[in-house]
Amino acid sequence: MIIILKKQATKEDADKLLGIIKEQGLKPLYMPGSERTVLGALGDERVLAGLQLDAYTFVDRVVPILSPYKLASRDLQASDTVVKVGDAVIGPGHFNIMAGPCAVESEEQIVTVARAIKAAGGHILRGGAFKPRTSPYSFQGLEKEGLKLLQIASRETGLPVVTEIIDIYDVEMMSDYVDMFQVGARNMQNFRLLRELGRAGKPVLLKRGMSASYNDFLMSAEYILNEGNPDVVLCERGIKTFVTSTRNTLDLNIIPWVRQHTHLPIIVDPSHGTGIRDLVLPMAKASVACGADGVMIEVHPQPDKALSDGPQSLYPDQFAKLVEQIARYSDLEGRSL
Amino acid sequence: MIIILKKQATKEDADKLLGIIKEQGLKPLYMPGSERTVLGALGDERVLAGLQLDAYTFVDRVVPILSPYKLASRDLQASDTVVKVGDAVIGPGHFNIMAGPCAVESEEQIVTVARAIKAAGGHILRGGAFKPRTSPYSFQGLEKEGLKLLQIASRETGLPVVTEIIDIYDVEMMSDYVDMFQVGARNMQNFRLLRELGRAGKPVLLKRGMSASYNDFLMSAEYILNEGNPDVVLCERGIKTFVTSTRNTLDLNIIPWVRQHTHLPIIVDPSHGTGIRDLVLPMAKASVACGADGVMIEVHPQPDKALSDGPQSLYPDQFAKLVEQIARYSDLEGRSL
Amino acid sequence: MIIILKKQATKEDADKLLGIIKEQGLKPLYMPGSERTVLGALGDERVLAGLQLDAYTFVDRVVPILSPYKLASRDLQASDTVVKVGDAVIGPGHFNIMAGPCAVESEEQIVTVARAIKAAGGHILRGGAFKPRTSPYSFQGLEKEGLKLLQIASRETGLPVVTEIIDIYDVEMMSDYVDMFQVGARNMQNFRLLRELGRAGKPVLLKRGMSASYNDFLMSAEYILNEGNPDVVLCERGIKTFVTSTRNTLDLNIIPWVRQHTHLPIIVDPSHGTGIRDLVLPMAKASVACGADGVMIEVHPQPDKALSDGPQSLYPDQFAKLVEQIARYSDLEGRSL
Amino acid sequence: MIIILKKQATKEDADKLLGIIKEQGLKPLYMPGSERTVLGALGDERVLAGLQLDAYTFVDRVVPILSPYKLASRDLQASDTVVKVGDAVIGPGHFNIMAGPCAVESEEQIVTVARAIKAAGGHILRGGAFKPRTSPYSFQGLEKEGLKLLQIASRETGLPVVTEIIDIYDVEMMSDYVDMFQVGARNMQNFRLLRELGRAGKPVLLKRGMSASYNDFLMSAEYILNEGNPDVVLCERGIKTFVTSTRNTLDLNIIPWVRQHTHLPIIVDPSHGTGIRDLVLPMAKASVACGADGVMIEVHPQPDKALSDGPQSLYPDQFAKLVEQIARYSDLEGRSL
Repeated sequence: MIIILKKQATKEDADKLLGIIKEQGLKPLYMPGSERTVLGALGDERVLAGLQLDAYTFVDRVVPILSPYKLASRDLQASDTVVKVGDAVIGPGHFNIMAGPCAVESEEQIVTVARAIKAAGGHILRGGAFKPRTSPYSFQGLEKEGLKLLQIASRETGLPVVTEIIDIYDVEMMSDYVDMFQVGARNMQNFRLLRELGRAGKPVLLKRGMSASYNDFLMSAEYILNEGNPDVVLCERGIKTFVTSTRNTLDLNIIPWVRQHTHLPIIVDPSHGTGIRDLVLPMAKASVACGADGVMIEVHPQPDKALSDGPQSLYPDQFAKLVEQIARYSDLEGRSL
Repeated sequence: MIIILKKQATKEDADKLLGIIKEQGLKPLYMPGSERTVLGALGDERVLAGLQLDAYTFVDRVVPILSPYKLASRDLQASDTVVKVGDAVIGPGHFNIMAGPCAVESEEQIVTVARAIKAAGGHILRGGAFKPRTSPYSFQGLEKEGLKLLQIASRETGLPVVTEIIDIYDVEMMSDYVDMFQVGARNMQNFRLLRELGRAGKPVLLKRGMSASYNDFLMSAEYILNEGNPDVVLCERGIKTFVTSTRNTLDLNIIPWVRQHTHLPIIVDPSHGTGIRDLVLPMAKASVACGADGVMIEVHPQPDKALSDGPQSLYPDQFAKLVEQIARYSDLEGRSL
Repeated sequence: MIIILKKQATKEDADKLLGIIKEQGLKPLYMPGSERTVLGALGDERVLAGLQLDAYTFVDRVVPILSPYKLASRDLQASDTVVKVGDAVIGPGHFNIMAGPCAVESEEQIVTVARAIKAAGGHILRGGAFKPRTSPYSFQGLEKEGLKLLQIASRETGLPVVTEIIDIYDVEMMSDYVDMFQVGARNMQNFRLLRELGRAGKPVLLKRGMSASYNDFLMSAEYILNEGNPDVVLCERGIKTFVTSTRNTLDLNIIPWVRQHTHLPIIVDPSHGTGIRDLVLPMAKASVACGADGVMIEVHPQPDKALSDGPQSLYPDQFAKLVEQIARYSDLEGRSL
Repeated sequence: MIIILKKQATKEDADKLLGIIKEQGLKPLYMPGSERTVLGALGDERVLAGLQLDAYTFVDRVVPILSPYKLASRDLQASDTVVKVGDAVIGPGHFNIMAGPCAVESEEQIVTVARAIKAAGGHILRGGAFKPRTSPYSFQGLEKEGLKLLQIASRETGLPVVTEIIDIYDVEMMSDYVDMFQVGARNMQNFRLLRELGRAGKPVLLKRGMSASYNDFLMSAEYILNEGNPDVVLCERGIKTFVTSTRNTLDLNIIPWVRQHTHLPIIVDPSHGTGIRDLVLPMAKASVACGADGVMIEVHPQPDKALSDGPQSLYPDQFAKLVEQIARYSDLEGRSL
């Protein structure tokens, strides 16, 4: 950790901090410059993070040297994490396709679409039973009934199920119905939920928050890992920017960046990432090409009758075409569907 | 609601939607243009929102005419809402000052600071017992013990207490200790929590999410109002932008905008909105000047010993000076402290 | 155009605007609703844009129906524009690779790198002679001398040259040296320059501004087209967001969006779009996969000796590998190198 | 400067950089940590900026200690710069009000509004003769004719004139008509223009670019200062964010931040910063309260007839009321109108 003092800081100020650094078992460094004094702390600086050295009035800035996450870091684990969800594999050599409607609406709807997904070559069935909606006047999901319908569709097709959890008190109940828990963008920093999922014994799909930095995102994964659950899959789903022509701005830069900095797999959700049906296929192909481990795609038997996110949902035949196209790209990447 | 069709849309396509509009009890309008056909739906268009007309492949865009919120709107209630928290009043004619440490750390800390706040002229004591922290390795709050300490400080000083709630299952327990529930920025779209607080019988301080649009923000207030709780106070606390010199970008534009569109009071948190101690006073003064109903200020007896947010916490004497300054500005606005 | 009036607007207010709409030769529409009155104007609404109807105090919002650009629109020209630069072709069926150093530094540097680019299979040589730099203390380019060196490298290799122009008064002089003018992100809204390049008789590579919306971007292209120059190539080079781990956020969503809305070709600059050498290859592959017509890549014989943008420049052997990889992807897209 | 090496960096790599640091006359520091090696360079690190040490493949990050600007810094000049424009003074003890229409449209318009501004107590007349407009189909300004009309209005009222310059080749011609050059947001990084204005012998009003960081902004000021012109006034006019309810997001945090870091005066443009007439007054008051040296306000005799920016222009009587209100606030700040 590097600590840059303000111009007016005195030798006494510096000594105070150097003492604190030493107390914490780190090696202190004193670097007086012509315009500013700079201090260093060598060792596992994470112990200093809690001390908030930048709260001193004579400190200008604190610059960490190490990443704030540890368990999620490639420094700790060099080899890629492989996550299994039922028969599906997420990690190197594989390209995983999760698909399904935004919300579970009826048995007919979910079974129909699950069959289409299975037939086309999808690996995991998605579908929301608990729906966080911006408006209190919008459809909020079938809740437990929706989970049962997902289970029926899963048994019909053999597809494992991923669905969103929005409350820690549903963990146990949901465990009977789901193969993978999804944490939505709005809950990426619901730290109690993350911790609870760290102890729930099932893989977790962690979606990036709409204004989460790369470090924020990995710190949320760290919460889950820190409780002993190694099966975390990251998901880029678009961030909030000044662009309004698309629903969100899909930040694919994060895919190769994450590949370098963490051993966790990462997939892309081009449906939410664009919000526009015709943009889903090209952005799914781009996701393969930049190294993603999978995609999550919204498919609905009748998008214009959907109770949520219809404009970005694919028709089943569009989805089948998407899988075909993706197969050719994932082949180039040495990944099998 | 205005529905703009794609260039290739046919008369049949238009008729389909016009039929749907009529079915919902709205007045349909057909406007064929030289380049595009436009449809209209006159009446309470909110019934159409759930239909997702933009999911049809032949629809280009749907433009709502009315605001998506209703109860929060000035159209419904023209007069300003006044919220009372203990003896404190939030609304026109008053300028409310909430203050306290980021986190409750010990009895000595919270009582000392509460006395300083009371002496300086603050109205409500803030202090976090449950702390959502980006890192699992940071201090997470004293939890229930913290609530008890807040209560002690409240009894010592007579200041009512506002503190953050992060989970619906704490509502009942916390009700014994707090006078106002605070919903943090990360929970602004925790819709279950909002609904529960709509039934909890206490005023709610709703902080704006880091990437929440003005409409998103008011829709979250709508969730609380819709359950029958009229005592909602909004709080601008800075948004996420490309600027990194400050912790967040305080968006004061929202103050006069909200004044026009909603009857709910709104306060400002310049501590989180800037993240820099020396910027808190000028931005607090700016908040008064643009019409805010109050401010929330972080104060700590020893910021350099604080377990969280030290760099943005004021020293008690800085806070006293801030109240003095604010008094002169609020006087100009016809608001008494 | 749809005009939404404020709640308090009177029938007289509406009549005033309806009269103006009629005067301009458009068909006026009057739609009184229960909560708001809405007006419509059918016809070529672009004549209304200059009237600023939203300046009336009784107008709430004006919603355009048509895109603000015309010449750039697919509505006007359905078939893709193909741009030729020397022997290079930018458009469907081709994938164009522009490459070279950020700045021209010496004859040896530019000739060495040009040969490497030619050998690897690149199509157009890039290199800055006039460098807009954030700091007045940074290298500002070799200016005219740089143009001469580019010409030498071009003659040596047969590669046509694209380079940035920063001032209208250089158009004539530069015309002797360059095959394509590049407009940098900072000049995307230098409208005089755009107009001048609309009359300069050479293709233009127009880079997207760091905070330019999709419409802003196409409106800048419209300036060039409007002067009679049809040879405009768009370039996505990353936008400014809250993300700081990468230099910019590459917004690949724009590629398929632009494909739908305009006939102009679009390429991607993953070097500026990421700012990190190791991210350039994956994002170049993603660019092919989502439908881009080409990429622009920074290559330097010795990046650690570069006078600008070294951290994002590829080594020549990395570039050769990139071309190989891209060839396999562009093949899938039916595009030849 | 602090240089953080990658994990895999060798002792040889470190030695290479340490040698370079020494060669440049700085004091090199070697800090081997348990997980990373960190290097330091003590002295005027700005000489290192041009070397791009982060281009080495074994370098992770370079962290500057000093601000990139020098002449604009308070470290160099502790006392506030005071800028005089005709009789108007911009700096401590004064609050400056610049006002006028977005664009000069006719003699009657500009003279009428100039008289109203003078009568109300404004100090400087603004008005655009050269208008950068997003659309080629919008009004682009009266150009030289507009300058002549500004001069007439100036002579009538005694108000000095500030107007936008968009091209270096207009400097000399415009010098006969204007008292202060304005650089618009789109030209904040038109470095040639900045340099030319550094030699033009008149004060410069530099508007912040829509996506300019605080450092970018001050670096642009540095370009002007570096040519010998000390009379630079900064202007915050709103940045581009995800918020769409207002035209821009006014970032008032920058006012007290700039006050700490630079000696240059800064004013606020709440007209562009909000884009909404009714938000101009409250945000102008907020600007005074957080320490701005002035405001720039759009006023038009008939906003609904304005050729540009009508929706954000005040009526003359609204402007008079604004000056009255501002007077009360600036009085509290110890600033006279």
